[in-house]
Formats: sequence, C-alpha cells, structure tokens
Amino acid sequence: MKVFSKQEITARLDMELAVQCLEQGFIAFSQGKVQVPPVQAFAFPQANGDCCIKSAHVEGSDTFTVKLSTGFYDNPSKGLPSNDGLMLVASASTGQPLALLQDEGWLTCIRTALAGRIAARLLAPATVKAIGILGTGTQARMQLEQLGAVTPCRSVVVWGRGDAELAAYKAFANGLGYEVRVTRNAEEVARAANLIVCATPSREPLLQREWLQPGTHITAVGADAPGKQELDPALVARADRIIVDSLYQCSQYGEVSHALKAGLIKAQQLAELGALLEGRATGREHDEQITLADLTGVAVQDAQISSCVLASLTAG
Amino acid sequence: MKVFSKQEITARLDMELAVQCLEQGFIAFSQGKVQVPPVQAFAFPQANGDCCIKSAHVEGSDTFTVKLSTGFYDNPSKGLPSNDGLMLVASASTGQPLALLQDEGWLTCIRTALAGRIAARLLAPATVKAIGILGTGTQARMQLEQLGAVTPCRSVVVWGRGDAELAAYKAFANGLGYEVRVTRNAEEVARAANLIVCATPSREPLLQREWLQPGTHITAVGADAPGKQELDPALVARADRIIVDSLYQCSQYGEVSHALKAGLIKAQQLAELGALLEGRATGREHDEQITLADLTGVAVQDAQISSCVLASLTAG
Repeated sequence: MKVFSKQEITARLDMELAVQCLEQGFIAFSQGKVQVPPVQAFAFPQANGDCCIKSAHVEGSDTFTVKLSTGFYDNPSKGLPSNDGLMLVASASTGQPLALLQDEGWLTCIRTALAGRIAARLLAPATVKAIGILGTGTQARMQLEQLGAVTPCRSVVVWGRGDAELAAYKAFANGLGYEVRVTRNAEEVARAANLIVCATPSREPLLQREWLQPGTHITAVGADAPGKQELDPALVARADRIIVDSLYQCSQYGEVSHALKAGLIKAQQLAELGALLEGRATGREHDEQITLADLTGVAVQDAQISSCVLASLTAG
Repeated sequence: MKVFSKQEITARLDMELAVQCLEQGFIAFSQGKVQVPPVQAFAFPQANGDCCIKSAHVEGSDTFTVKLSTGFYDNPSKGLPSNDGLMLVASASTGQPLALLQDEGWLTCIRTALAGRIAARLLAPATVKAIGILGTGTQARMQLEQLGAVTPCRSVVVWGRGDAELAAYKAFANGLGYEVRVTRNAEEVARAANLIVCATPSREPLLQREWLQPGTHITAVGADAPGKQELDPALVARADRIIVDSLYQCSQYGEVSHALKAGLIKAQQLAELGALLEGRATGREHDEQITLADLTGVAVQDAQISSCVLASLTAG
C-alpha cells in the first residue's frame, strides 16, 4: 500500500479534473449507481470532538474509498488544527488496500468547496453583483477561491463573529484580488450579495427570509450533521428551486430538514444536484428566482476525489 | 502516524493480554459503554467480493478503531489470499490518526479465535472427550490452536468437504500434538465430540439436532452476515443456554436469527457474552446441558485487540 502526504496530494490534485470527477460522481449517485453505506458517527463529548466515517463505491470503478474525518474543537488550544482526516483507497477487484491518502482533511475541504462551485455554476444569477460569505474559516476561504472560476465578480461581503477573524479573512480575500467588505451583521450580506455561501458551524439561523433579494442564489454547506442550521426555515420555503446533494441526507439533517419538519416545504420540491447536472431536474429559469443548494457532503465525493488524485499521484 | 506490518503485529501481540482486553471489551459492550456505529457493508458481485467496515470506541479509552476487512473469493486464482484487512487507530482526545495496523486481516482472525476460546472456557463441559471442528480453513485452525489453552483434550474430529483440505488440516493438527480423525460426515463430529466449533462459510445447516450428545458445547462463528448458517434451527432451540456476542447482531444475522424468525426461541432466552463474563447471566449449570455460543464478531473486539497490540508495538 502506498502512503501519500498532504504535501504530495495538494501538489498533484488537478482542480479541473476534480470538478469533472465530482460531477460524474453526483450523477452516478443520483442514478442509484453508488454504494453508500450508512455514515458512521462518533461523539467524544469529553474532548469536544466528533468523527465520521464515510465510504462509497461508484459502479464500474476500480476502487472504493473509506474516509475518516475528525473535528476536535479544543485542538487549537493544544496547537493542533481542529480538523483532521485521511482516505483509504482499496481495490474493488481484489479488496487489497492500495493507498492511504494522509490529506489531514484537505480533500474533504476541497471536495466540499468544489461542490459549492458546481452549484454556483449551475444556479447563480447571470450577473453576480457581489459574493456574500458567511463564515471566516477554512471552508469560507476555499469557497471564495473556487467561486473565482465561475463568476468574474470580484466583490465580496463577509460576515463573521469576531473582528480579528474578519480582518484575517479580508487580508486573504484581498490577496485573491477581491474588493472586501466585512460585517458582523448578516443582514448586510443578504442585502448586498446575490451569490451567498454559508460556511459556518452554526446551530441557529443566520439568514432571515425578509432580508433576501430577488434573484439570489444561496449555497449552504454548514449543516452536515444533526443540530446544525444556518438558514431560517421560512427562507428555505421562499426558494423557487431547492437543490440538495442527497435527498436522504438533506432530509435527515441538512438545511432543508428543518423546513420539512415544520411542514413549510414538501419532499417533492427537492431535486438532487446529480439530477440537475444530468438535465433531469430544473434549475434557475430566470434572474428573479431565488435558488438554494443544500450540501451535506456525500461519500461519493470522497470516492471521486480520492480516485482522481490517486490517478495523478501514481501516474509516473 | 505509525505504520506497522503484519510481521511486526504477529510478533508483538501478547495472547494472554489480548484475552483480558477482549473480555473487558465484551463486558463494556454489554454494559452499553461502547460506541458501535452501524457496520458498513459493500458487495462487489462482479469480483465475488465483499467488504465491511467496523468501528468502535470503548468509553474511557484513549483511542478508537476503524477496521476494514475484505473477502474476495476469486483471489486465490490470482495468487492472492481471499481475506485482507487493516485497522486504523486514532486518538479519542485529538482525533489524530495514530497508527495503521496493516495486519492483512490477521487481527480479525485472531480476535475471532480468542472469542471462541473465551466462550469455551466459560461453557465447555468439565471433561472434553474430543474437540470437534467443522471447517478446514484459517479460522478452523486458529480456533483449535486457541482451545489448547482451555482444555487438556488433545483429540480432534474434523469435518470438511474435500480430502485434500482434510489431509492438510490433519497435518496441521498433528503438528499441534492432536490425535486427529477426519470425516466428510458431520454427524460423526457431533457423535464423537462434546466441544464443537463451527467455522465455515456455510449457507445451510451442517449440524442436526438429533445428532447432538448431552453436555455438548457448540461455538458457531461462521454466521457473520445475512444468509450464512451452520446449525439446524431446531438444534439452536434444543440448547439449554444460548450466549451471543451481540444481541443486536445475532438477532439480525447470527445463527440464532433463523431460530428466532421460525419462532423456535425467544429473544429473552439470549444473553450476551459480556453479561456472562460479568456474572449477570447464567452459563452452564451441569454436565448434561447443551450450550451454544453464537459469535458474529463485534467491532469492540477490533478496538480492544488493536489498542492491545498497539501498546506492545509502541512500548520501547
């Protein structure tokens, strides 16, 4: 079995190829051609930590992937990053372990950011007047980096809870060539931006229905486990189109789960990203519509990005 | 993260310590002190293969374990072993991956054999006249090796489907100091032996109720997934005591599941190995009773044996 470090992985991932692999993965998933066993989740309350194990095999693929990802939120006080993780790739014809990708959680971050990019390409309004970002962490940064590939807009409004975090994010976004406005009032983001990404670990709604401008697209990536929530359920119900990465996962604990439970939306209103990519679902029809992409993170993304980067790593 | 090979692992596992760790694990499991997320299972019908991912964390332990184990049954024709696997041990206080145990499935085999040893120590009749083994594969060998620690009996009757396999098993058991009788008729095993281990991948009953002698103990380890079965459900119903490694798993797909579905036994008749170890359940009361241990393999065994061997591997 080959072992690859984060340095090797980040150096070799071809981002454009990864986008294609992820799109193919979402399509296969929505066609029912992916084995996705139930997510294994651990809670470590004494250490303020959690862990999940996601595994997938795409029909026809030579490999399957098992991913471990951890979040231990007291780690920074110990000089360690909050998130860690790795992916294990094994042969689907012999079962032999082929590669251990010690990406330290980076592949999970990037496949999540790339899903946001795919959703924005499909659903953002024709003219993005400003990008809005909720959150100032790693994922909030990666999402902005990836949006640069799908819109020429270079204006961003960023919401965060702390001045230091906002100042650091501003420096980061300036470095990408963005004109940056920071705020501690989420309403400002909703009023100014029409392409918004929510990338926080929030457990309560940050964006309210009445703040939203016509034509806005929102991608929400924070709600990846029970208890998490970034959007007012009434805002979810206001969306003209709701796209989810997984009907099952999103109905269980995604952003749409709250609106479903409250009876504000019906399951039939939801369509999967794979179905949208394949043309079996309708996306944005005009520039006044509000669209929402609810992304909980599906194991097929891990299977696709790991096989994609492994092909690069082992090609000569 | 440290990576250890099968050679290092087999050289360093302290078998007596492993038994203690497994017993503590079974007790913690039966006390509800183990996080055991649902097993992830893959099927690869084109390659005649399967894979399962079992994970566990024992309350209070510094680590948790994720195990991958595969069975690809056409591998021997490619010069590869049918079974492979590895265990990943991570910190329960920081989430960091600590060690990769590339045991190639050996730890799974040995923890299964040790569970058989624990069951035999608790449930075998006082005088074992002969050991009976159904199966001639790796697990059938390891079970016999481990039984040597809990009974002075050195007479074994072995059932298998092929003469070559039986001859090879005979040579193996002779090497351990056993007097060996081989047979292709399972009834001979039941008539001659009063400590029987079933270790086959059978999908139909091999042992019938009417063959069984009073006082016999049977440990069945083959039924570890839906569809597998080694015992006549009427034989299961005949047992005076039924001990299972996991009430949940055994009721789902263990040997007892068939008798439960047929209404021949009631769930209340079952007790867990951990409860027996702890003295909360009753085992054998006299030498005429028939006892049964149904072992499907629980992730807590993986967590315990991996932390046990890792302690040895990293101690100096």
